[in-house]
Amino acid sequence: MLRPLRLAPLLRRYFSSVTPRFPCVEAHATRESRLASIASSSSGPEPPYARPSPTSYAVFQSSTPLPLTYSSFSLPTFDIAYETWGTLSKAKDNVILLHTGLSASSHAASTRANPSEGWWEKFIGPGKPLDTNAYFIICTNVLGGCYGSTGPSSIDPETGVPYATHFPVLSIFDMVRAQFRLLDHLGIDRLYASVGSSMGAMQSLAAGWLHPERVGKIVSISGTARSTPSSVAMRYAQRSVLMADPHWNNGFYYDGLPPHTGMKLARQIATITYRSGPEWDARFGRQMRALPEDAAPDTPRVPALCPEFLIETYLDHQGEQFCLKYDANSLIYISKAMDLFDMTRPALDALRIPEATLPPDANGRLHPHMVSYSKSHPPPTNPPTYLPELAQGLAPLARTPTLVLGVQSDILFTIEQQRELVDALRTAGNDRVVYYELGGVWGHDTFLLDVLNVGGAIRGFL
Amino acid sequence: MLRPLRLAPLLRRYFSSVTPRFPCVEAHATRESRLASIASSSSGPEPPYARPSPTSYAVFQSSTPLPLTYSSFSLPTFDIAYETWGTLSKAKDNVILLHTGLSASSHAASTRANPSEGWWEKFIGPGKPLDTNAYFIICTNVLGGCYGSTGPSSIDPETGVPYATHFPVLSIFDMVRAQFRLLDHLGIDRLYASVGSSMGAMQSLAAGWLHPERVGKIVSISGTARSTPSSVAMRYAQRSVLMADPHWNNGFYYDGLPPHTGMKLARQIATITYRSGPEWDARFGRQMRALPEDAAPDTPRVPALCPEFLIETYLDHQGEQFCLKYDANSLIYISKAMDLFDMTRPALDALRIPEATLPPDANGRLHPHMVSYSKSHPPPTNPPTYLPELAQGLAPLARTPTLVLGVQSDILFTIEQQRELVDALRTAGNDRVVYYELGGVWGHDTFLLDVLNVGGAIRGFL
Repeated sequence: MLRPLRLAPLLRRYFSSVTPRFPCVEAHATRESRLASIASSSSGPEPPYARPSPTSYAVFQSSTPLPLTYSSFSLPTFDIAYETWGTLSKAKDNVILLHTGLSASSHAASTRANPSEGWWEKFIGPGKPLDTNAYFIICTNVLGGCYGSTGPSSIDPETGVPYATHFPVLSIFDMVRAQFRLLDHLGIDRLYASVGSSMGAMQSLAAGWLHPERVGKIVSISGTARSTPSSVAMRYAQRSVLMADPHWNNGFYYDGLPPHTGMKLARQIATITYRSGPEWDARFGRQMRALPEDAAPDTPRVPALCPEFLIETYLDHQGEQFCLKYDANSLIYISKAMDLFDMTRPALDALRIPEATLPPDANGRLHPHMVSYSKSHPPPTNPPTYLPELAQGLAPLARTPTLVLGVQSDILFTIEQQRELVDALRTAGNDRVVYYELGGVWGHDTFLLDVLNVGGAIRGFL
Repeated sequence: MLRPLRLAPLLRRYFSSVTPRFPCVEAHATRESRLASIASSSSGPEPPYARPSPTSYAVFQSSTPLPLTYSSFSLPTFDIAYETWGTLSKAKDNVILLHTGLSASSHAASTRANPSEGWWEKFIGPGKPLDTNAYFIICTNVLGGCYGSTGPSSIDPETGVPYATHFPVLSIFDMVRAQFRLLDHLGIDRLYASVGSSMGAMQSLAAGWLHPERVGKIVSISGTARSTPSSVAMRYAQRSVLMADPHWNNGFYYDGLPPHTGMKLARQIATITYRSGPEWDARFGRQMRALPEDAAPDTPRVPALCPEFLIETYLDHQGEQFCLKYDANSLIYISKAMDLFDMTRPALDALRIPEATLPPDANGRLHPHMVSYSKSHPPPTNPPTYLPELAQGLAPLARTPTLVLGVQSDILFTIEQQRELVDALRTAGNDRVVYYELGGVWGHDTFLLDVLNVGGAIRGFL
């Protein structure tokens, strides 16, 4: 009788001698080789963010230095890239300044010069929530960004090379002040409205705060007037993985390879905060990626350590798509500006915000007992301890009609932050606050997706 | 008249010539130098996880191969490190098997052999929730771990060097089956209870599922019977940053430097999921680290790109503390096992779980209409679509008294998951499910901190 061949130990021995492979890790080296070969060929393209096409947007070039919140030095010169939609009225009284989120360009909607779809395409146009038949809409690339406005990747006139991390730390107020320089340049004295989502909502509030007399209405969608430690934590995690990439090189990577792997990892983390658990469960559940077509149909599936679940391949894909589209230093500086944003009165007092005229003591303007609460405007339950300080900080906004819109499934700018903003504005004496709370599973990204509800609220408010 | 000296441009020129420094990034290189110098000195210590002190715990060494869920190969031999508290009764009927979370060792409480504090020190002892006057408590280091049990850092008998990523992908069921081999060895036929939190709760459920006749009671604290895509996403982000560290080297780092920077970054991300936003707001708020003592008192604070907020220095510190205490490959394998855990019936059917005897068709055992709902046991509102499949998968647990405890502020194992587990068990016909929902701000870590409520619930249930 033949002795049965003991195959398993032989196979195990064989597999022990084969070096395991990890395509998800090899992808970093592959990307690096590709980038290096492009960099070494003289005709190779630079990353898209370093290829401004000034024909597709306008650039306001200021040679008047811009004093900054956190720096003893002014920015000697600066550019602000911008695009517009609709027609400026003769009285110049129909202007909406639209602020972007962290990584967006001025391209909010398609234009003749750039017909590709914008990041708020469905919200801007004739008859749309930002109605170009009625309004003249301006959107800028933010100061610190990399899509045509001055940021860390711009040439420092002092040295002739990119600023890199010689660039000064920015505040949200600095960004808004640069935008008002553009408005001055365009001869626009007053905004019909200041509109923004996410970081754009911070800017929208900051605009009304810096220039109460120049901002007619404020729209704040999924934003906050005070960044929470948990949102700081998520952004810190992103900056950490990015700065740990050796290619980051303390920010001096512009003549070499950018920290593409760090950017990919950072974007993966960010992406987790943009949607919600319920959305992923409905969209991906526990589905795994399809097996290769040549896999035997009844092969038992041995899980890999690289992405297997669709949620993993989704994050991988989002990171990969983003990692060369945006400048790493811009990400670091702008995410830091978001962390630093805090409109409580003591925090504002500690800043040196040029041109700001905070009322000497806002206490006198507080009317906590004069706020009329109703069923639709209930008094805050369990308000945070800093609510009075936030109300004091927001005192300059007491007269400005404000739309606050929040999403219950948002894990980055939580619904509690939307409520505290509303409560603080009302406590500051603002009786023209409109508040909407949206359900749904889209989380923070709702402002990009929900034209019906977000767009409807904006249309009604404007 | 003297022309005023224009100092700012000179200063700016000076600062443009100074290379910016980033202590948080330099820390990685400093750590690396320190590790390298230790590694090169012949007497230098290995990382703590590679220094088992077999006098402080017992080791069960099995030379009977362990078949695995996801592998054609068995583990030829394996060790399970364990510690015990209390006295085994003559009838061996007072045994509680305590399961750990991802990164814990068998050292749940101090012992004579190891008097240092354990991770559940306040829960184990005479008169404590796990009362050593009544029970004999066993805690193991999990299979795949690095504190005395066989894992990727163990020597592969086939090659004489550490398995590294030749180690097979594990399931939670494999871990539990290794534990039952230990129970067999100790002559323990039946557990009084199987108790665990977090990943330990998964094991606790898996133990009752594999051996319904050998498990008297089940305690599941802040666990789940089906990992959600959002928890997979958070663990994937951790594995990604770890595997991207060049020192990870496809898992083969045991004769070189471990991926300490990747481990630190991974732990930072993990730490974000262990507490809650409200806790951080109460504990840290927006406070910043203290300035150096020699800083001028009225120096305006220029924010750095490195950690400034206490929430950032907290994450930094947690990452730094952990990065050399645990084996990177163990983290990868065990976190993957958590992702793969899914007790819905179709998922279980797709596995090849050795020794498991899933009832041929659990449908007949489902009594969805026989579940008695009351005010304290309301019917599920908005149950997930997979609830019937989860109930089918949990059918073997239909007769086992089970305590489910969840925390409303837990963002990793959400309260919805606790409710779905309870609903699934009840739908499976289990009318002995006790359910507690805790408030508070401690999030997932509540099980480590809240002796009063978590301990009280356990004591009452046992």
